[in-house]
Amino acid sequence: MRNLKLTIEYQGTNYAGWQRQKSIKVKTIQETIEEVLCKILQEKIKLIASGRTDAGVHAQAQVANFNTNSSIALNKLQRALNGLLPEDIVITKAEEAPLGFHSRFAAKSKLYRYTILNQKNPSAFLKDTAYFYPFPLDVKLMQKEARVLLGRHNFKSFQASDNIKRNSERTIKKLKIAKEKNLIYIDIEADGFLYNMARNIVGTLVEIGRGRFAGGSLKKILLARNRKLAGPTVPSQGLTLVGVRY
Amino acid sequence: MRNLKLTIEYQGTNYAGWQRQKSIKVKTIQETIEEVLCKILQEKIKLIASGRTDAGVHAQAQVANFNTNSSIALNKLQRALNGLLPEDIVITKAEEAPLGFHSRFAAKSKLYRYTILNQKNPSAFLKDTAYFYPFPLDVKLMQKEARVLLGRHNFKSFQASDNIKRNSERTIKKLKIAKEKNLIYIDIEADGFLYNMARNIVGTLVEIGRGRFAGGSLKKILLARNRKLAGPTVPSQGLTLVGVRY
Repeated sequence: MRNLKLTIEYQGTNYAGWQRQKSIKVKTIQETIEEVLCKILQEKIKLIASGRTDAGVHAQAQVANFNTNSSIALNKLQRALNGLLPEDIVITKAEEAPLGFHSRFAAKSKLYRYTILNQKNPSAFLKDTAYFYPFPLDVKLMQKEARVLLGRHNFKSFQASDNIKRNSERTIKKLKIAKEKNLIYIDIEADGFLYNMARNIVGTLVEIGRGRFAGGSLKKILLARNRKLAGPTVPSQGLTLVGVRY
Repeated sequence: MRNLKLTIEYQGTNYAGWQRQKSIKVKTIQETIEEVLCKILQEKIKLIASGRTDAGVHAQAQVANFNTNSSIALNKLQRALNGLLPEDIVITKAEEAPLGFHSRFAAKSKLYRYTILNQKNPSAFLKDTAYFYPFPLDVKLMQKEARVLLGRHNFKSFQASDNIKRNSERTIKKLKIAKEKNLIYIDIEADGFLYNMARNIVGTLVEIGRGRFAGGSLKKILLARNRKLAGPTVPSQGLTLVGVRY
């Protein structure tokens, strides 16, 4: 028995997210890769990812592992996968992992990037990979306000209200907001993310940058533990799982 | 009568090129915009572009003009167009032009960029906007050889052999090859391009970079005026019309 670890890049536009669904009408990234693995290895394969990503969300380096009895060489496996997978899913690395390695349980932190296209006109090229927001945003204010989110907190205010976890405490290790020309990048690294947490934090920061929330409001929203006080969930196409730390 | 000039960004992936086709099965960029203009202005509109682009080729700033009797304000027209056009076509500017202005005849030069993704693995994000080429390329040699193409020459060797123009002389004003990380950009500015000229020049430069053609061969190919000696036509998805100079 081997435990193989894949690093996966995907553009999520045409998929109903990572996780295999019961409905056969929607195509997910997990089942697309599992089906190709099954063809190559002639075995039923179950992929374990670092976590699911929602419909339309992308990944630069999602990590997933699986057990197999095959003795296939890693470079051969990678080449076969990339030859058979659709062009919007690419295996960037295939490695041997210790038998006990579990992509989700072993993850120390995950880094997400949210990309905002902040200009008057939309872009034909970024339609699927950025959130087009035409109104001016005060990036310095967003940077200043965002600092209160760093560290260990109860993030219930930023959790999808229809998906409450018993424990809403998470640690944000890094939160960086950078502007390059007309693109604003919001990078969030945390030991874990509640459902919609990244997109709800970004939605709240956008409201702050737009001047809709007064200075100091982010701290109040965080402490209130009430989803209704935070900003809207920004669209999925701006979000990318940049990587997973183990 | 007014003559209006549009600057247009498009991702060409889902279109059979710029030019309206007789077949109703293929969708072109020209007809897509003309149909929306017709809806907005309640007039039959004929767009004149700086030139056609092939299926799969993109534009950062294609230019097209049209005559209209409408008195619509420019900003209103632009907003209506971007509201009704599909997301992969964006009007980035709408201007008033002199009545005699003709997007094709008035063009002094056009700038095309060809993008090569030069790394071991393909990219899920660049599948539609770059040419994936996994073998090492000697960019310095490509830069050195490319110099012979600068200036006025007969480019018959780089012209699609099924589409011969009487006059194959063109002037290349600029030819710059730059490497940024794993991306190679080949920028070509010329007073005009023969059919497939940009893609055939790039295909020949790739053969040179790969070491398949000896040093000095580009000059021989140029002087031979024989399409058979040049390299292959590289795929359309790597090509972008960056802009038009008037």
